[in-house]
Amino acid sequence: MDIGTLFGIILGLVLIIGSIIVGGGASAFIDIPSVLVTMGGTIAALLITYPVGKVKAVFAVTKKILKAGNLDLEPWYRTLVELATVARRDGLLALESQLESIDDMFMRKGVQMMIDGNSAEAVAAVMEQEISNLEDRHAIGHGIWRSMGSYAPAFGMIGTLVGLVQMLRNLSDPSSIGAGMAVALLTTFYGAFFANLFCIPIQGKLEQRTEEEVALKRMLLTGILAIQSGDSPRIVGEKLLVFISPSERGRLER
Amino acid sequence: MDIGTLFGIILGLVLIIGSIIVGGGASAFIDIPSVLVTMGGTIAALLITYPVGKVKAVFAVTKKILKAGNLDLEPWYRTLVELATVARRDGLLALESQLESIDDMFMRKGVQMMIDGNSAEAVAAVMEQEISNLEDRHAIGHGIWRSMGSYAPAFGMIGTLVGLVQMLRNLSDPSSIGAGMAVALLTTFYGAFFANLFCIPIQGKLEQRTEEEVALKRMLLTGILAIQSGDSPRIVGEKLLVFISPSERGRLER
Amino acid sequence: MDIGTLFGIILGLVLIIGSIIVGGGASAFIDIPSVLVTMGGTIAALLITYPVGKVKAVFAVTKKILKAGNLDLEPWYRTLVELATVARRDGLLALESQLESIDDMFMRKGVQMMIDGNSAEAVAAVMEQEISNLEDRHAIGHGIWRSMGSYAPAFGMIGTLVGLVQMLRNLSDPSSIGAGMAVALLTTFYGAFFANLFCIPIQGKLEQRTEEEVALKRMLLTGILAIQSGDSPRIVGEKLLVFISPSERGRLER
Amino acid sequence: MDIGTLFGIILGLVLIIGSIIVGGGASAFIDIPSVLVTMGGTIAALLITYPVGKVKAVFAVTKKILKAGNLDLEPWYRTLVELATVARRDGLLALESQLESIDDMFMRKGVQMMIDGNSAEAVAAVMEQEISNLEDRHAIGHGIWRSMGSYAPAFGMIGTLVGLVQMLRNLSDPSSIGAGMAVALLTTFYGAFFANLFCIPIQGKLEQRTEEEVALKRMLLTGILAIQSGDSPRIVGEKLLVFISPSERGRLER
Amino acid sequence: MDIGTLFGIILGLVLIIGSIIVGGGASAFIDIPSVLVTMGGTIAALLITYPVGKVKAVFAVTKKILKAGNLDLEPWYRTLVELATVARRDGLLALESQLESIDDMFMRKGVQMMIDGNSAEAVAAVMEQEISNLEDRHAIGHGIWRSMGSYAPAFGMIGTLVGLVQMLRNLSDPSSIGAGMAVALLTTFYGAFFANLFCIPIQGKLEQRTEEEVALKRMLLTGILAIQSGDSPRIVGEKLLVFISPSERGRLER
Repeated sequence: MDIGTLFGIILGLVLIIGSIIVGGGASAFIDIPSVLVTMGGTIAALLITYPVGKVKAVFAVTKKILKAGNLDLEPWYRTLVELATVARRDGLLALESQLESIDDMFMRKGVQMMIDGNSAEAVAAVMEQEISNLEDRHAIGHGIWRSMGSYAPAFGMIGTLVGLVQMLRNLSDPSSIGAGMAVALLTTFYGAFFANLFCIPIQGKLEQRTEEEVALKRMLLTGILAIQSGDSPRIVGEKLLVFISPSERGRLER
Repeated sequence: MDIGTLFGIILGLVLIIGSIIVGGGASAFIDIPSVLVTMGGTIAALLITYPVGKVKAVFAVTKKILKAGNLDLEPWYRTLVELATVARRDGLLALESQLESIDDMFMRKGVQMMIDGNSAEAVAAVMEQEISNLEDRHAIGHGIWRSMGSYAPAFGMIGTLVGLVQMLRNLSDPSSIGAGMAVALLTTFYGAFFANLFCIPIQGKLEQRTEEEVALKRMLLTGILAIQSGDSPRIVGEKLLVFISPSERGRLER
Repeated sequence: MDIGTLFGIILGLVLIIGSIIVGGGASAFIDIPSVLVTMGGTIAALLITYPVGKVKAVFAVTKKILKAGNLDLEPWYRTLVELATVARRDGLLALESQLESIDDMFMRKGVQMMIDGNSAEAVAAVMEQEISNLEDRHAIGHGIWRSMGSYAPAFGMIGTLVGLVQMLRNLSDPSSIGAGMAVALLTTFYGAFFANLFCIPIQGKLEQRTEEEVALKRMLLTGILAIQSGDSPRIVGEKLLVFISPSERGRLER
Repeated sequence: MDIGTLFGIILGLVLIIGSIIVGGGASAFIDIPSVLVTMGGTIAALLITYPVGKVKAVFAVTKKILKAGNLDLEPWYRTLVELATVARRDGLLALESQLESIDDMFMRKGVQMMIDGNSAEAVAAVMEQEISNLEDRHAIGHGIWRSMGSYAPAFGMIGTLVGLVQMLRNLSDPSSIGAGMAVALLTTFYGAFFANLFCIPIQGKLEQRTEEEVALKRMLLTGILAIQSGDSPRIVGEKLLVFISPSERGRLER
Repeated sequence: MDIGTLFGIILGLVLIIGSIIVGGGASAFIDIPSVLVTMGGTIAALLITYPVGKVKAVFAVTKKILKAGNLDLEPWYRTLVELATVARRDGLLALESQLESIDDMFMRKGVQMMIDGNSAEAVAAVMEQEISNLEDRHAIGHGIWRSMGSYAPAFGMIGTLVGLVQMLRNLSDPSSIGAGMAVALLTTFYGAFFANLFCIPIQGKLEQRTEEEVALKRMLLTGILAIQSGDSPRIVGEKLLVFISPSERGRLER
């Protein structure tokens, strides 16, 4: 798992839970009906908005992405320069032998199309469409986490309103006012906590990741088109370098 | 009805109503004037914003969409590949006999235009215009539900302000303060509940559905243009595959 | 006046005012200084933002639009097909005699340019510019109502803050606390009421109307360009049909 | 000064200050530390965000724009038609003599480039770039007022939080609660008042003005290109008319 | 360090801290657990959203930018005009000798590509890609500060909710209510203070800076392309002037 993400989640939990324990009365912060209203309401609204299949798929993808480390552009850079070297030396058809060593479906498809003799326009069109479809599919994942991040505080507020109305009907017993209001506020707390420590950060992480993947795929497309147009390995490398941040370029040019 | 949507609505209702009953005094949550102010105000604002005919039409469409299951791209994929096979074997005009078996008006129009000998540009232009008009028409539906999702909490707050002013004028009778405030808060509760369990999720579902329909129509357009340009069924299939998520592609390629 | 709009305004007023009367003490809801702060502040901010002439013009246009019914595309469709018939039969110049029967300035200009022998590009360029300028002019109207919809609650809150500060200075007389707070809340009520029952719905209606007018003008432009290119009346009709929702097409094709 | 703006500012000040005086205890609304926190905090945040030079420049520009009346397109229209008449009669080079009577730098540059024999594309490119740079420079002004409009309420709230914490520490003296809370609320009042009567309306006015100036510059560019292409004064006039609202066109065509 | 930024930070701190000290009881505003919840929670959410490496890099870049003064376009303008003079007199290849005196990597690359005989399209494509990648890299920095600016108030509110629940459970001891609530409000204060005096202004400053850098790089690109197309130094200068605000142009033309 990405060490920063794990550390962030633990840090957040320790700080909030710690401040609860230090303040005393941690048991007052556990209230099953409040959890059910906040989290259950969020899930209910989510199931109305999105098909069950997509919600499940997004959770699986999220788990995979949180586990994965960061994307490193370097090996892709080296592979492309190597393919360019082979193509320059032995011709485009010689890439056929390299094909099975390419794991990535996207890159493989591009190289295959190139070997099959498709025009640069055809290769670019199909691969651009793949990138655009990837963005569309990922957008659903961002949407699901964004929805959770806004449903959770909303249902937290709904729960608090229910609790307030119930408390206000029993004002005759002053001793119960504080406890009633404390319980009423719990759902707002749950909603804000869940949204800000999980939903919104995870949505941000997924969006980051989509951008990284799209940038990688654009780099792959640029590389394949450069190889197809017969560029020398040095030129291919230079065209790829613009996709890499200046601070990392030095390492690659060596 | 889409099982997830139905389950979501029931789950949300059960959780909120359950938490009300468990807390005691469910009858305090039913107040007809409060319902009238919140829901009536929302409908009033909606009727000022949108023509009556469009509001009615949107509710009919919403009912239809909630009842329908998810779009499955597979049969459309198979139909297009089949049409491509016929066209390759017997020529474009042979598609005339297939025409009556096509239910979808959009696809039918495209195939008809192709048989009539229109150019690829003409077919694409008319069909792109149809897609763009479909998006425009659907946008009104999204707008109506989005408006309800923001009017409902607003009129909930207006009702609460009315209730608070009335309560504050009778502070001399302390025993009525709690009850008055409880009633005042009810409209805010109704507004938040209606917006977050119905309006916003349904708006989200309709937007999802529009995206799915547009993606399907783009796939149909891609397929028709591929058939018209004389692509082999295998190539047509490949061009369509990019519209389908990688996880489902395996199933189709078999 | 559009019956839905009128009904919406009356419904909203009846519900809110009704709930005030039912709750008792309607007189407590009338406070001239509060009205002055909320509405006057809104108008003051509006006059700083927009030139007086434009504010007046927008109110005149709003009145006209609220009075007008919905746009019906059918007569325009029929007129264009008729013009196409005349042009096909007697040539483009024969449209000269039809010119005075066209009320709409936009359509007249287009037909006139066509008769004058301008190229399709020139006709399209001038008419597109007209559409774009229409959108710009209408955008000011949307902006003015949107501004009012956000200034009104803001000045409502400012009035409430003034009232709260005044009330808090007299806490020594407990009997006046409730009344003071009730008056303080009135401005927030006025602001929310005015924004949500008038400003925001009317803004929505104007935006709707602009979209309808732009769609109509685009249909007119499409029709004129089709006539100019010598399309048969049947083809002109078909090109126009894509602008009309499927549910209304049946009626027109008869 | 634009009479509407001046009237709006005075109206807003009279209404708010009037409601304070009528309510009694106007002196309670003056609190120097509160003014310092709200306005000083806003200025502090502004100085962190924008370079001092730009803040000063924006205030100078704002003063100039508030003083200036509205843009009138009519004289520009007449000047362009006149230039077209001269160019038609005596050739483009004859415009040289008109050059010194043109005050506007933008128009002058365009006419000069035309006289120098630059191509229409070159003239359009340079002038479009000028328009785009004008928009960029103005955008900073909008940004500064928008920032102030959001910093002011934020520092108002910060001041209120400081006041509340201080008040809550002295609950033992009940008589001071009201006064403490009244002072605490003052900063929120200042922030809301300053943002809604000054920052947001002025930002709106500047944006309006930028749009007007850009529209004027586009009209000038259209006119210059029309003159360069040798259009007759009548045609130049017609091309310019689309930039003018229909209600004003009648006056110009006379 | 940019004097305005430094002054802004000190002014903001002095005003807020001053108002705390003047109000008495400054010690009540220091509460370590509250700081931990607000700032720690913000950092935790940030670490979940962004990779650790990028957070660190952004803080380093922020420090550098806050220290740097404003960009001055003048030396770049002069350098480009000088290069144009050399190129006009001695040919493009003579620029080789100037190359080592150019510090900026972006400009150096452009000049090098020009000397190497690349086409104008190739130079423009590579440099546009560099600009677009620069914008993408900077966007992460803006995103990190924007995230902090919204996480900080959110965790402030979470801390306040925790404090309120704890306080409400001890209503039996009235003397502790005020102190408990004061502590509860502290986190909201910290969050609002940190967001509005640091996160949002710094985000604004970074965005300003990115726009300035992009504008500079566009000016460099325009200049290089003008030199490559063989423009005279005077024309190159004129093409560059449109990037400079009118108030500064006079100084440069001298």
